[in-house]
Amino acid sequence: MIGEVPDTQIGQEFASRRLTHEAGIHRPLQAGICGTKRRGAESIVVSGGYKDDEDFGHVIVYTGHGGQDSSGNQVSDQSLDDAGNAALITSYLEGLPVRVVRGAHSGSQWAPAQGYRYDGLFRVTRYGSKLGIDGFLIWQFRLESYEGTPLPEPVQQETLADLEEAAASGNELVPAGNESPERVSTSVQRIVRSSAVKRQVKAWHDNCCQICAVQIEVPGGSYSEGAHMQALGRPHNGPDITGNVLCLCSNCHVMLDAGAIVINDDLSVIRGGVEVGVLRTHPRHVLDMECVRKHRERWRQD
Amino acid sequence: MIGEVPDTQIGQEFASRRLTHEAGIHRPLQAGICGTKRRGAESIVVSGGYKDDEDFGHVIVYTGHGGQDSSGNQVSDQSLDDAGNAALITSYLEGLPVRVVRGAHSGSQWAPAQGYRYDGLFRVTRYGSKLGIDGFLIWQFRLESYEGTPLPEPVQQETLADLEEAAASGNELVPAGNESPERVSTSVQRIVRSSAVKRQVKAWHDNCCQICAVQIEVPGGSYSEGAHMQALGRPHNGPDITGNVLCLCSNCHVMLDAGAIVINDDLSVIRGGVEVGVLRTHPRHVLDMECVRKHRERWRQD
Repeated sequence: MIGEVPDTQIGQEFASRRLTHEAGIHRPLQAGICGTKRRGAESIVVSGGYKDDEDFGHVIVYTGHGGQDSSGNQVSDQSLDDAGNAALITSYLEGLPVRVVRGAHSGSQWAPAQGYRYDGLFRVTRYGSKLGIDGFLIWQFRLESYEGTPLPEPVQQETLADLEEAAASGNELVPAGNESPERVSTSVQRIVRSSAVKRQVKAWHDNCCQICAVQIEVPGGSYSEGAHMQALGRPHNGPDITGNVLCLCSNCHVMLDAGAIVINDDLSVIRGGVEVGVLRTHPRHVLDMECVRKHRERWRQD
Repeated sequence: MIGEVPDTQIGQEFASRRLTHEAGIHRPLQAGICGTKRRGAESIVVSGGYKDDEDFGHVIVYTGHGGQDSSGNQVSDQSLDDAGNAALITSYLEGLPVRVVRGAHSGSQWAPAQGYRYDGLFRVTRYGSKLGIDGFLIWQFRLESYEGTPLPEPVQQETLADLEEAAASGNELVPAGNESPERVSTSVQRIVRSSAVKRQVKAWHDNCCQICAVQIEVPGGSYSEGAHMQALGRPHNGPDITGNVLCLCSNCHVMLDAGAIVINDDLSVIRGGVEVGVLRTHPRHVLDMECVRKHRERWRQD
């Protein structure tokens, strides 16, 4: 349920939330975030319900869930314990894709003129809290579309006229809705997306590094990376199975990938030529010793 | 000199190495790799000079430099001390783009029919060593084009006929030249590209983490990440200056980005609510305290 939904196209329109529900694109009828802390967020609806939301097309600043009264005013602080907010943090930590549905509302050139529209997969690249417009704490998530995802047709062409006017007047202040922030993936971002295989390995080890035992704790959970020993694809062609994946902290992952760490057949760990300990194991996590060996041979220097 | 060259288009053709030199696309007249260990690789030429090279279009398995005799046979082991090979490792560690020039040669459907062709920017996503076809140790680098980079027109259409024949015969073995390995960036890869600003900060600190003092050592160098405290782009709009960047190990970077680590105005470091030490400094690295404060406030939970 994470990722693309069969038989649905980017740009497909839906007249109502009932229809996005029936298509499996966004299943809840009211909540803006579909997901759980354990599995991550499946989908969100961007519909102008939060005053602090900002939509730049390829980048969306999305306000978390909670703290509003029935008329849409923020009346209390938002919390990371909220299931929807916790789901988006899991999506961030695991690098999982989130389906984005935009709903019609005024003030955004990227919203559809009516109803709802599925606009493709985004990743959560950042989050943080701030005091919102109404003076209460809100959590915000930056989502970026995957490269290659087409932008919808903008609906408010008059903003372009505003832009030209501003340029002509020598005023460089660009209306917020027209700015196109740089995609983080081209400059900054850590993108270590978890597959189902990696998530299984990480779950067995409870995000504890199999090499150095570090468990990176972050607000809302803990973080680790699934590392293939024998890399997928050419030229190594490793298998995408749990026996080929280790649960590592980011530092040990860097060192494994660069050959600073290799593992012997007796599971002793060699770092920088020195034995530094033994790989931590889990009874259900059976390593494929062929993968251990092939990783080690990739770094032979004889 | 890293990245795109002004006035040159992807797909542009050059009749000779002299002309790629004059255009600044690939400056050496003979060497296949242009670059240094300190700055990374500017460009490579893929021209069939190494038997172990493989070209899949968006993915290239490129053999490092050295160990060949004048007739192109591998007669000794390759070394990471070779300047070109060391340059490609720096490109990998720093996430820097490498210009790829393909030269005409038989056996690759992605090579131009004659002369040389600039085919855009690639990143080094992996490397390792193996025994080459001639029985000596070689180093190989996996390069992947950036998403959105167009593929050149393949020249050997007969391989498609081979494919159809294989499919018709029920033989699923696909000729190597036609395989299109998954881009690692969509599933696995750490991409923390260093800008000039980040590289300066990392150089000042010699890749030692300013929070935990770890220096990640890998064959061919050491590794750290430049971390913006106040993130670039919406909604935080942090400045891209050295005062806004910390030199961190990957683990501390994850924690800084997720708010598990914040820094006080006296540079004491708070991790998980507990003071764990003081930020390491360098006399030339003057922090912008506004950025320190804004990062901290992004994680307020009052």
